[in-house]
Order: sequence, then C-alpha cells, then structure tokens
Amino acid sequence: MKKITPRSEDFAAWYQDVVLQGDMAEPAEVVKGCMVIKPNGYAIWELLQRELDDRFKASGHENAYFPLLIPQSFLKKEAEHVEGFSPELAVVTIAGGKQLEEPYVIRPTSETIIGHFFAKWIHSYRDLPVLINQWANVIRWELRTRMFLRTTEFLWQEGHTAHATHEEALEETLRMLDVYADVAENVMAMPVVKGMKTLAEKFAGAVRSYSIEAMMQNGLALQAGTSHDLGQNFGKAFDVQFQTKEGKLDYVWQTSWGVSTRLIGGLIMTHSDDKGLVLPPKLAPKKVVLVPIFRKEEERALVMEAATKIAKEVGAHVDARESETPGSKFFHWEQRGVPVVLELGPRDVASGNIVIKRRDTGTKEIVPQAEVAGKVKATLEVMQKDLYAKAKQRLKDNTVMANSIEEVESILSNEVTAEKGGGKFVMAHLKDDPKNDARIKEFKASVRNIPAVDEFDGPGKCILTGEQVDRRVCIAKAY
Amino acid sequence: MKKITPRSEDFAAWYQDVVLQGDMAEPAEVVKGCMVIKPNGYAIWELLQRELDDRFKASGHENAYFPLLIPQSFLKKEAEHVEGFSPELAVVTIAGGKQLEEPYVIRPTSETIIGHFFAKWIHSYRDLPVLINQWANVIRWELRTRMFLRTTEFLWQEGHTAHATHEEALEETLRMLDVYADVAENVMAMPVVKGMKTLAEKFAGAVRSYSIEAMMQNGLALQAGTSHDLGQNFGKAFDVQFQTKEGKLDYVWQTSWGVSTRLIGGLIMTHSDDKGLVLPPKLAPKKVVLVPIFRKEEERALVMEAATKIAKEVGAHVDARESETPGSKFFHWEQRGVPVVLELGPRDVASGNIVIKRRDTGTKEIVPQAEVAGKVKATLEVMQKDLYAKAKQRLKDNTVMANSIEEVESILSNEVTAEKGGGKFVMAHLKDDPKNDARIKEFKASVRNIPAVDEFDGPGKCILTGEQVDRRVCIAKAY
Repeated sequence: MKKITPRSEDFAAWYQDVVLQGDMAEPAEVVKGCMVIKPNGYAIWELLQRELDDRFKASGHENAYFPLLIPQSFLKKEAEHVEGFSPELAVVTIAGGKQLEEPYVIRPTSETIIGHFFAKWIHSYRDLPVLINQWANVIRWELRTRMFLRTTEFLWQEGHTAHATHEEALEETLRMLDVYADVAENVMAMPVVKGMKTLAEKFAGAVRSYSIEAMMQNGLALQAGTSHDLGQNFGKAFDVQFQTKEGKLDYVWQTSWGVSTRLIGGLIMTHSDDKGLVLPPKLAPKKVVLVPIFRKEEERALVMEAATKIAKEVGAHVDARESETPGSKFFHWEQRGVPVVLELGPRDVASGNIVIKRRDTGTKEIVPQAEVAGKVKATLEVMQKDLYAKAKQRLKDNTVMANSIEEVESILSNEVTAEKGGGKFVMAHLKDDPKNDARIKEFKASVRNIPAVDEFDGPGKCILTGEQVDRRVCIAKAY
Repeated sequence: MKKITPRSEDFAAWYQDVVLQGDMAEPAEVVKGCMVIKPNGYAIWELLQRELDDRFKASGHENAYFPLLIPQSFLKKEAEHVEGFSPELAVVTIAGGKQLEEPYVIRPTSETIIGHFFAKWIHSYRDLPVLINQWANVIRWELRTRMFLRTTEFLWQEGHTAHATHEEALEETLRMLDVYADVAENVMAMPVVKGMKTLAEKFAGAVRSYSIEAMMQNGLALQAGTSHDLGQNFGKAFDVQFQTKEGKLDYVWQTSWGVSTRLIGGLIMTHSDDKGLVLPPKLAPKKVVLVPIFRKEEERALVMEAATKIAKEVGAHVDARESETPGSKFFHWEQRGVPVVLELGPRDVASGNIVIKRRDTGTKEIVPQAEVAGKVKATLEVMQKDLYAKAKQRLKDNTVMANSIEEVESILSNEVTAEKGGGKFVMAHLKDDPKNDARIKEFKASVRNIPAVDEFDGPGKCILTGEQVDRRVCIAKAY
C-alpha cells in the first residue's frame, strides 16, 4: 500500500500518485509518451463516452469511421494545418514488407481525410448538413507527456460537419461547445469558462476556435474541449463544392470539435484529494461499495446475509474478499474514489442500522437499514451537487481582475509556483492580436479564451495597446 | 438510384452493391485496402458492440486500452507469432520529425504488448485470473481486400486473459467461443459451426485455436470469430511468472479471442437478397419506418397527424422527406434493410387501418391501427426467428459427407464456381496433420474446423492416411 504525495508538497507528484494508486493508468514506458488505460480508468471513459454520445445523437449526429492512416500529401493541402501538425506526426514508411511510395501519417486529427470524402459525398445543398462523429485514437508526437493530460496516443471523439452557410456552421460550433460545457458541468461537476480562442491560439486551419477551460486545484487552466469554425478552409483545400438552392456553386462551411481522455485528467485534478481519487457519482463505475465486517467465523453468515440483501436493494458492490481486512478495503475504495461506502458489522445487523460514509467529505452517518436505499440515493445526488459547488467556488475565488500588464505579470509571478497551487485566472482587457498573446507568453502563461459571457465589467482599454475592447480575456498558466 | 447485381449473376458484385447501396461503407481508395464505415454500417457495429460487450462484462471481463504502437522487437519474442505476422506489418520509422532508433509496428493484434504489461502486473496466484478486453483498431497489410470481410485496417475487440492453470485457460477459451456462437446465432441470426482449428490453421503463437464458421449464401465459409488457447507461449516469451498457491514459480496460461467488423460482412452475406440489405431486427438501427402517403396537399395534415401518433406508439421513424416520392422511399428503406415498413395513406386513415410490410418475405398485410404495435412487435420477433431458421436450413442443405479424397475434390470442383453459389461444407474424416491440410489446399479449400459437436457418424478412417480419427472435419472454400 503506497501513500499519496500531498498536493501541498508536490502537485504533479500528487496527480501521478492518484492515477497510479487509483489503478487508472500507467505509463507505457516502452512506447514513448503512451500510457495503458487500466480498467478503473477505462470504465470512467466509457461512462463519459455514453454521456457524450447520447448528446451527439440527440442533436442529430451519426457515428462513422475513417482510416487511421492518411496520405502524407493530404496534410499539405491546408497551409496552416500542415504547419501546425507536421512536427508531431508519426509516419508509416514501410508496409507489407515494402517501402511505401507515398508514406502515410497516423492521424493527428481527421479533417483532411474526412475532407476528401466530403468531396465525394456532397454535391448539392440537399446533401447538407452532414453531421458526423468519430470515436478514435490519434497520435501526436509530444515531447513532454503526462498520463491522461498529454499522451502521444490518446482516445477521443472528433465531430466533423458540413453546412450550406457560415451561419449554420457557426451555430453548430457553438451548439457543440454547449454540449461540452453541459457534460463538464453537469456530469463531471467541473465548472468551465466557455469562450473564443484568440487568433494566436486557434486550431491550425480554423477560422475561429472555441474552448471550455477548467481550473484545476492548483489554479492552472486545462483546455477541456474545443470546437472549431473551419470556415471554407478545408472545403477549398479538398474542393468540397455544392450546388446552392439558387443554383450557384459554393464551398461547404465546416466545423470540427473534440474532447479526449484528457477529460479524465481534468476530472482528477478538479475533485481528488490527498487520500486519492474522488469521483462525482455520475462518473463512478462503482457508486456504492458495501464492506461487511466480522471477526468471528460465526458472525459471517449473519453479516453476509444482511449485506447481500442490502446490497441488492441499494445496487452496491459487496467487497467479500477474504484476503483483505476491512481497513485495507476502506483504503482500497477510498483511493479508487467510490462515492459511498457502507459498513455493516454484527452490531449493525443486530440494531438494524448501517454506516454510510461519503468519500468527498469523509462524513459517516448511521442510518436505519430500512432507509438506506433512499439515503444512498440522496447522498449521491447531494455529493454530485456539492462537488460542483466546491469547484465553482474555487474558480470564483481564484479568478482576479488586472488592469495593467504589470499587474498581470505580478499576479502570475506571485503564484508561489503553480505546481504548489495558487494559480489564478487573470481577467484583463486585451486586444485579440498575436503580438499581445506573445507578450503574455513571456510570463509562461497564455490567453485561455475570450469568455462568451462577460461576468465582469464590460468594455475597456487594452492593457497593451490602449485600444477599446469588448470585454476582459482570461489569462492563465495552463496544462 | 442504382440497381443491385443479382446473386446468381455475380455474387461478389452483388455483395459490393449491397454494401454501397445500403450506404454502409465505401472503399477508401486513397488508403490501400481501407474502407470508410459510413453511419448506416457503423450503427450496426455499435449494436453488435453492445451485445458483445454486455456479455463480456457479464462473464467478468473489464475493458482497458493498450498502445497502438508496439516496439518491433516485441513481435520477435514469440517465434511463431513473428513469422505469422511479419509480412503484414505497417511500420512507423519516423516520428516527431526524427528517424526512430527502434521502429514501432502498428498492432496487428496485441498479445505482445499486453504480455509485457501482464509481466508487470502479475506476481502471485492472487493476481489471477486477469480478464481484459480491448476495443480497438488493428492493421494487417493484406493484398486482396473486400469491404468488411478483409480490410487493411479493421475494428475489433480482442480479449486477453491470464490464468493459473491450463484447465482454467481452456475453459475461458471455450466460454468465449460460446459467447461468440451465442451472438452469431441469437443476435445475428447466423448459424455457425463451432469447433477446433487444425494445427495448420491455428493462430500464430497459440497452442490451439477455436473458431465459429458460418456459411454464406454462396456456400463459402466465413471464419466469424476465433478464440485461442495460448498455453504458456506468451507467458514464456514475456516472462509472465507468478507464485502458485504451493509457493512455486510458474508461467501464466493465457487466452485471446476476437471478433471484428468482418461480422458485418457475414451478416450481409447470410441474409441479404437481390433487393439489397436484409437485417435481423436485433441488429437493425431502424427497426420500423413509416412512410406517409398523400397526393393532395389537403390530405397531408390528416395523414401526418395519424402517422405521428402511430409512429410514437410503435417506435417508428417517420420518413417525412418532401423531396422524395413514396416509391423512392420504399426503395430507399428496402436497400437499407429496415425490417418493417409501414404505409399509411388517406384511405388507411379513413378506414383505421395501416399496411405493414416485412422486408425479408416482402409480404404485405393490412391491420387495424389499434393492433399495429402488437403486430409490429410480433413481426419483428418472427422475422428474427425465420431468418435464423432459413440460414440454418441452408447450412444443413449444403453440408455433405465425403468418404474419399476424390469425393472431396469432386464436390469442391462441382461447385459451378463458388462465386455463383453452390459451395458446400464437406464433412470428411481427416487426421489433424499439416500435411493433410496441405493436400486440401490444392483444391483451393481448407479445413475450417473440427466441430465440437459431432452431428454425423462418429469415428472413422482418415481419407488420406487411413488412421482412425474421432469425427469428421469441416472442409470448405472460404473467405
């Protein structure tokens, strides 16, 4: 049994410990920058997939699957795209025992290969919109990797849609951003700042990108999902032309949007504590575990009978392992983030009570067995809400305004060091101009996004150029 | 609107037409041997996944995810394995802009990389069994490809388990073969012959392989799923040792088992007809479509109101497209294999009736609207059973016994040509010896498996060597 490094001591070590002790993943040291997602981690991904997929389908999207390999020449068709992704590509040069004439790259994202097929499928406005999503693995050769947060290979979904007008495409881009924010806030209990990326930070090939940004417990930002208005860039690159209602030829307007296994990293860094993983009930593969307690062999039958009955009623997993003590079982489930643990011993059986323990607060309560099902249900609901409220408060407490570039710098450098917590979201008036982004980068921070909803003081003068801008942008150090 | 080549004319062309007209997939001609799985095809895969995954979990398996890339040296650790897979590998030699010191192969299957991690995870009999499944894409560089049946990249699941004894591993191997047979027969309505592969036909690295073999409408066999008893081969290759209950060191006993998107090819070639796709109700993404019919504008409201009400009751999709005639709608859904199509016109509304049409038989029936929900439910159930019964009868009718090698040859050469139908499963006594498999290969056929259940005449003399064998083997031409 290993201990978990406290957050206050070393946030990065704490994160790694939570992942390892929660048995969620481990580095695949033999494959550079990759990880193995173990059953405890993958089960969370499956729950997230279901929540997302249901929402994609409800909004009219269908799943499809495109090839993993993309002809290298495809990436070059969109100038910004190739520039953005070239340094990160894994290239297949040999296949079936032969050197390939044209190498393939492993998809870092699929706009290009999908653009190629959109050109074959779309001819008329009647073929539009095309609303497709793909669940897939992608590879981006990253130098610095961290489990879930940034890995060479990761799992994700990528939505790709084509529309007859820019208006429709933009609507779609924002609709999917809302879906992401909904899942983040209402399923993951992770509050996010929804907004538009600056031009300097947009996706390579997009006209505009939008993101949801979450605040981790150390105050660092995590880009948790992005949605891109691709304009006609890929339509032109792949010649996806269609006949409009008016009989003219036009290029389609496209969008793409994605979230990945990175969300699990965000989930961990939003809720977990020094004891290990804390999961919001909606994403807990096991919501309730019952630990039966008995010392004497003659108590076993009595306790196990009551435990089995209660577990069935509550939908709990009974931890009946004989090789482990109750204490080590509590430790085990605590590290794995099970929201509610029930304890049942001989005295509880005699008194008709049961002990219910909540993972996030650690509070224990004795309740009559007759009420346990209702009590568990209520506890799970409250815990889901409380986790969100706590994270929301943290976001609020650590979001500050700055009215000069010196103030921005001072706040960001006052952070003790982000790895020990104390990071802030700094709200400042800043013009959306790559030159200004470059200045912020000097502080090892970046403009996370320009929030969609202004919760601050409206328009103001850019702290670098003095020009009037609509609202404050969100600046932070980020993963 | 394109026509479908009749099966009697050209079975291979018919298959391709059904896939294309059903809008299930199309060749990705720019990526050698790959296909795009379009929404209509992918939705079937999702239903199959759910059926399989539920059964995997019910039998104690958990999902996990291992890296796509495998160090090339890993494949060489198991002698048969590398020999079997080397010719089919896609190799990544460049990544992140640099030549790699050791190239990676894209997984053709994951025994090796998983073996590596099993060695890290398994130390004691207490760690066993490990029961893991992975949903993933794999690449095998094939020369001749056909959509779904054999593609360079395909989607599949691969189960990988480790056990303390050979007995347990063999039990697992056969359990999962049963799961595959269950899904094939009771979900896909595709009867299969369950059995053991000959030594010549086993998986590269297995001690023994088991398969389910289905008969396509042209009499060709399709290997639809395999389950492998890996013995200690990978345990030894990757040094997966554990301490036994008795305190000794031993290598784990492993299994692996997989089914892939190939199943969709089998599904098509089992049930579809010259009009296009026929889907068993359990795998139909849309089970019921209602086509409203009206000529005059004033009939529209009347018909649409009744249609909406009935559709809601029945769970039907209403095809309200204004750009299409009822005739083209019927054609559309017929080609896409929708099991039940309802027709509702103004006269039906007036009489309180509705027309129900069944895809496989083409029969139409007029039923009172009050009874339509029950009628649809019953029709779907009967159709599921009838499709199985029809396929089962076909399998029976085209399975023949042969008592000499000349007879085997004669039956196989009498097949008109398999592409035009007339293929047979030939049951003959044959000793499990690679030399005998080689002789059968001369007829462009192979031993499909040695059936687990002998439905024939028990032991007999091998038609090549005269040696006594337990039962007849199944010989056929195959995909």
